[in-house]
Amino acid sequence: MNAEFLKKLIKPADTKIVLLVMDGLGGLPVEHGGKTELEAAHTPNMDALAAHSALGLSSPAGPGIAVGSGPGHLALFGFDPIENEIGRGALEALGVDIDLHPDDVAARGNFCQVAADGTLIDRRAGRLATPQAIRLAHMLNQIHVDGVEIHVEPVKEHRFAFVMRGEGLGSKVSDTDPLKNGVRPHPAEGSDEPSRRTAALVNEYIAKVNQVLADESPANSILLRGFDKLPVLPSYTELFGLKAAAIAVNGMYKGVSRLVGMQVLPVDGVSMQDEFTTLERYWQDFDYFYLHIKQTDTHGEDGDFNRKAKVIEEVDALIPRLTALNPDVIIITGDHSSPSSLKSHSWHPVPLLLFSKVVREDNIAEFGERACARGSLGILPAKDIILLALANAGRISKYGA
Amino acid sequence: MNAEFLKKLIKPADTKIVLLVMDGLGGLPVEHGGKTELEAAHTPNMDALAAHSALGLSSPAGPGIAVGSGPGHLALFGFDPIENEIGRGALEALGVDIDLHPDDVAARGNFCQVAADGTLIDRRAGRLATPQAIRLAHMLNQIHVDGVEIHVEPVKEHRFAFVMRGEGLGSKVSDTDPLKNGVRPHPAEGSDEPSRRTAALVNEYIAKVNQVLADESPANSILLRGFDKLPVLPSYTELFGLKAAAIAVNGMYKGVSRLVGMQVLPVDGVSMQDEFTTLERYWQDFDYFYLHIKQTDTHGEDGDFNRKAKVIEEVDALIPRLTALNPDVIIITGDHSSPSSLKSHSWHPVPLLLFSKVVREDNIAEFGERACARGSLGILPAKDIILLALANAGRISKYGA
Repeated sequence: MNAEFLKKLIKPADTKIVLLVMDGLGGLPVEHGGKTELEAAHTPNMDALAAHSALGLSSPAGPGIAVGSGPGHLALFGFDPIENEIGRGALEALGVDIDLHPDDVAARGNFCQVAADGTLIDRRAGRLATPQAIRLAHMLNQIHVDGVEIHVEPVKEHRFAFVMRGEGLGSKVSDTDPLKNGVRPHPAEGSDEPSRRTAALVNEYIAKVNQVLADESPANSILLRGFDKLPVLPSYTELFGLKAAAIAVNGMYKGVSRLVGMQVLPVDGVSMQDEFTTLERYWQDFDYFYLHIKQTDTHGEDGDFNRKAKVIEEVDALIPRLTALNPDVIIITGDHSSPSSLKSHSWHPVPLLLFSKVVREDNIAEFGERACARGSLGILPAKDIILLALANAGRISKYGA
Repeated sequence: MNAEFLKKLIKPADTKIVLLVMDGLGGLPVEHGGKTELEAAHTPNMDALAAHSALGLSSPAGPGIAVGSGPGHLALFGFDPIENEIGRGALEALGVDIDLHPDDVAARGNFCQVAADGTLIDRRAGRLATPQAIRLAHMLNQIHVDGVEIHVEPVKEHRFAFVMRGEGLGSKVSDTDPLKNGVRPHPAEGSDEPSRRTAALVNEYIAKVNQVLADESPANSILLRGFDKLPVLPSYTELFGLKAAAIAVNGMYKGVSRLVGMQVLPVDGVSMQDEFTTLERYWQDFDYFYLHIKQTDTHGEDGDFNRKAKVIEEVDALIPRLTALNPDVIIITGDHSSPSSLKSHSWHPVPLLLFSKVVREDNIAEFGERACARGSLGILPAKDIILLALANAGRISKYGA
């Protein structure tokens, strides 16, 4: 998308768009000739909607590329996920569901073991057991550094995500991890003024960590590397003229949607029913709603075909609450595929349904991978979905005469 | 399209290509589950041709973008319509069907009201009524300026299109419109030698306009802004090795086809039958023919489903005259969609039929939106159609060994 080109064409309209994302929606049959999770699920409401929709397959980042939920969502939100890379530190934080804010500085952390003279004995503290790491992270999260909030979140074994939140922080901070044993960790150094201030706070923090962990063994210190912030993206309001809201339970999705200028709405509970209640409650206040369903991906990654199909059926049962709101545009898709047979994210393009009052219907009364492969939208780059949503919502004016 | 890459592969051939454009061809059903205008029309000849063709959907400028006929045709002619933007002045002129030549300088004009001391009272002369503007435009078109022809064409209310035709004109001319009342209009100024000469002619013209309109009220002067020319594009002969001809009744289409180096053929009459007669008459003299049908768009924009379908049937009845000429390649499509239900241009991709003696047939014996959605060409950027036409006409040599 050429943002400058698009901004000239955006016009206001009194219309509402809903993007319903079932995480990891795309699937595979368990045996040749069989059905996918979505095809096996009984989905009368989505099938009825499909009959009056255009169908296709969403390609998150091009052929063969399996994406994480971060880039998968950036694409669904209209941004090229390869050009707008989310850095390693921010990715680690989003990956453990930290609700990362645009000004936060994130880094990847290791628990490590240092000798009395400060030289590194083991950069990974013997691949510290995860329960130990959780206990130590809890101790670290008691540490106070003036002017900022610092949070660490265990990832696995010795690894954790580090986030510093405060005013005017910089992310051009050098790694403290020297990447080899037998030497001292580096002090953090900043390469511009906000980053120098941030580096000083990082060093102050590490000094306090060393005191708190002094009596622990093997892990008695930490290493930090890959400092960064979320990429800076134009907001939905600025770029698409949309007052946009996000409805999600998990922090990662809140973080990515906040990144593109969506307002994250409170959900009273953690169920998908609770999310739909939020949609209903705020219906008058926004013109674009992103609603995220996590469990499809969870069961896909667990390799549980039946439970993934069951979640899809539960979502289907909620569709009447969505259509009762009479949205002008409804998009149902996923951020990537997570076939239960692969127990992981995959590159397979994702079923995509585009309903609107002015869509050219495909007359295919089924929402499923193979039905979508016959649809008129073809294989659509996920980043272009927003353009079709805006056009169908009457929010793009004609180009030229 | 990479022009340098393509030019190396272009080879001559004794073959003929016809591009038949039904303006605004793509449509929508009027009710759920219904047929589009093209689907509803009885088109036995196009359906028979479809059976031996490859089908698809043409995308003028990417997902969600509704284009005007200018960019829509540039794309069908093989040029990226976003990279090759037609400027505001030229667009205004093309929009009111002025047959703009590549050397013409165009601008957007306002009738305005000035006080006795020359300061602007109202930039829009009270939004002058259109019939008044037509009368004043007629007066202005009697004015003579040595060395150039100047034509103004009313658009709506106080707005008109201005075109200066002559040798060696420049378009780097500043606006005379100061964009606020209470000040004097600016004199036109050129920023290079041809544009300085052009600006002097513009100022001479405006002085004469002021004499001609001296006794009129409220509109007694004019403002000009957005001077430009058509973009400079390589010609069909240079780029594709084609001796190309355009058959169109309306000036806008003549202007855009002349822009890409087509020879505009005379049509003896204004009917589509007359256009086919021109095609027959000049058949031996060219190897690429663009033939434009206007009425599909007219009735689409009028919201008249039945008349749009009827025009398509009339075109269908003329198809035997086309196939009797035995063209090597026939392309039937539109420059954009104009669904009668929307009464406007729309973003929906456009039915596309590619017949040739060496095409891989889809064996779909129907030319319609949903039939084309099942076709093997998929959703094809309109600017790539020329490449398929050239290949099917044996005019592109193998790349590499």
